[in-house]
Amino acid sequence: MNRTEGGVTAAKGFLAASTAAGIKYEGRADMAMIYSGRPCAAAGTFTTNVVQAAPVKWDKRIVQESEAVHAVVVNAGIANACTGEEGLSYCKQTAQAAAGLLGISADAVCVASTGVIGQQLPIGRITDGVAAMVPKLHAGQKAGREAARAIMTTDTHEKEAAVSFEAGGVTVTVGGMCKGSGMIHPNMCTMLSFLTTDAAISKELLQEALRADVADTYNMVSVDGDTSTNDTVLLLANGAAGNPVITEKNADYEAFCRALNEVNTSLAKQIAGDGEGATALFEVRVVGAKSKEDARILSKAVITSNLTKAAIYGHDANWGRILCAMGYSGVQFDPERVDLFFESAAGKLQIIKNGVALDYSEETATKILSEKEVAAVADVKMGDCCATAWGCDLTYDYVKINADYRS
Amino acid sequence: MNRTEGGVTAAKGFLAASTAAGIKYEGRADMAMIYSGRPCAAAGTFTTNVVQAAPVKWDKRIVQESEAVHAVVVNAGIANACTGEEGLSYCKQTAQAAAGLLGISADAVCVASTGVIGQQLPIGRITDGVAAMVPKLHAGQKAGREAARAIMTTDTHEKEAAVSFEAGGVTVTVGGMCKGSGMIHPNMCTMLSFLTTDAAISKELLQEALRADVADTYNMVSVDGDTSTNDTVLLLANGAAGNPVITEKNADYEAFCRALNEVNTSLAKQIAGDGEGATALFEVRVVGAKSKEDARILSKAVITSNLTKAAIYGHDANWGRILCAMGYSGVQFDPERVDLFFESAAGKLQIIKNGVALDYSEETATKILSEKEVAAVADVKMGDCCATAWGCDLTYDYVKINADYRS
Repeated sequence: MNRTEGGVTAAKGFLAASTAAGIKYEGRADMAMIYSGRPCAAAGTFTTNVVQAAPVKWDKRIVQESEAVHAVVVNAGIANACTGEEGLSYCKQTAQAAAGLLGISADAVCVASTGVIGQQLPIGRITDGVAAMVPKLHAGQKAGREAARAIMTTDTHEKEAAVSFEAGGVTVTVGGMCKGSGMIHPNMCTMLSFLTTDAAISKELLQEALRADVADTYNMVSVDGDTSTNDTVLLLANGAAGNPVITEKNADYEAFCRALNEVNTSLAKQIAGDGEGATALFEVRVVGAKSKEDARILSKAVITSNLTKAAIYGHDANWGRILCAMGYSGVQFDPERVDLFFESAAGKLQIIKNGVALDYSEETATKILSEKEVAAVADVKMGDCCATAWGCDLTYDYVKINADYRS
Repeated sequence: MNRTEGGVTAAKGFLAASTAAGIKYEGRADMAMIYSGRPCAAAGTFTTNVVQAAPVKWDKRIVQESEAVHAVVVNAGIANACTGEEGLSYCKQTAQAAAGLLGISADAVCVASTGVIGQQLPIGRITDGVAAMVPKLHAGQKAGREAARAIMTTDTHEKEAAVSFEAGGVTVTVGGMCKGSGMIHPNMCTMLSFLTTDAAISKELLQEALRADVADTYNMVSVDGDTSTNDTVLLLANGAAGNPVITEKNADYEAFCRALNEVNTSLAKQIAGDGEGATALFEVRVVGAKSKEDARILSKAVITSNLTKAAIYGHDANWGRILCAMGYSGVQFDPERVDLFFESAAGKLQIIKNGVALDYSEETATKILSEKEVAAVADVKMGDCCATAWGCDLTYDYVKINADYRS
């Protein structure tokens, strides 16, 4: 299992392109495309919001019904959410434009959008953008990197990850790019993640691996508790690595799942650390829970607590807020058995033992909490399950970014 | 049904006092006491947090087991939460100190605390404070007002309300004071509400009326989604009005419930409007829901959405965030049937009709959203149930107040 360079083009046979289509931004690329000449098995997970953007509806059908997917077209600037039948027709037109130029079926094209809710896409610019990208499709890190930049909204940097492993004597790669938690125009809080792999794997196992892993990675990230109408994770597998096709849960499947988890964990942490206005990545690990689900709920309650997030911004070892957030999470535990630690590159410090504060040094605690990545670790001593959640601090800039007027 | 002046001393036979006990603050009162010479039936509702402060544990037992309650002792500055057996013993010592001086049983005394979690009370100062207050117990608005000020933390003003109505030919009064949503030292996010009435009413109906009303009032308030370890609502009824004892759900009971609702609604709105750093009271009304519970969940999802709250701070008619928050609330509805309005003293404006934005004036919308009290009204057209939730905007000052170091 090796971390490698690159993102969405790291796996064999995947090309990418981007272009400045002028959808909303001036002077920067705002459309991206991913393409594989070999047909891909596709898996996807989508927002659970009752309000679902048109591209979410489109992709759900493609992932469920299409035997093969070849391409993904993404735009930043307008979310194509709350846009009715007209919005859905633009998904089809976008897919048809790409399909016509690539000589594939429109049902082999996924689409994704991030941006303002409630505006219609300028469909002419979108199809012009598709036409501009098709001739520019390229393999290699540069094309992948540029695609990762094109899908950003107020993300402050592109987000990529890739991992390789051996299966059946060949090297298999899983890579991806994502965007999320940045805004220029409000309503752009969408998380989009695009994963590619050259693994040969059945569509069923691909979907199962993705669904299981998302629960421990993207679904454990929270910047502000607001679940977007557009959240989408797509995973395309084109089989170009030449490994024996993975059709059962053997050692190759386990290796694939580990690689997928490493890529997704990296991307999830990149999203959290680049949360709107964030100055720190805040990780919460709950150990000793009675069940995995309890551990997830407890860690997410802490990561989404505004009071805790503000305390992290202030480098304040405000453990009462952490215990309080765990307490209202809905999970049953005994507060008088909880141990709590803070840790970062600056060290590790126990704050609470059996629910009561130790005589710790506030100075040392503040030093630990002043790093760019800080963690709280809570042991609830109810069992042996654990979970990790990722978020960020709550800052003036979060308010500033989101209070600014949309135009 | 008439709004009257005053708060916790508005009902006949209730006295109040306050004192500067020096628990945490300099130069201001930080303890308060409520007393009725006539024995009171007592009802209470308490935090659902698994982590429960010592005074919550004490009061739960008193409300359940004691036939009569005469007094409540409150301190601001230290929450007496996460303080173990020692903390619980201080509740008992506080009650005993008051009981000894008042010639009543310690089981007739409730206690309440708000402040920093994890510190022990300076019990000597608490009992000295009790001794200082007993001789100062007074009827009348002034004593009630001073008590309401003494229980504040970073509340910017005291919160009181009182209502009178006729029952059996006599005037019955329900009054109360509360604090909440302000901080000086973090961890002070407790909501405490103390209600008094001179109604003669059975303990069972008193508890039932309170429990039912809290669901529509205090439980519909959110400043930051963090449920405190100390939240407490106490309602004492001493029967001094001389009305025929309310022992069944007759017209007098209904009148009592309406008065209680008016007092609690007023206090709940005062808490929301005085939320940490708030510049506006934000009310969300959901109508046309399939069930009351759906309406409550939908309105609370909007009121707790950080993105929506930041938009309110920016006077931005960012309706996409409202629809998005309703969408992830967990309630099923058809986004394409939703109507949405903004309203305030500056007017009322429809923004969405059947899930699609109208061609409304952004200027008018911003004008409406620039008032000190603004409301969003969503009609989901699924039934005839409705609910109202109250919150506030998310501001730089919220972050500042909560990021500042505890000392």
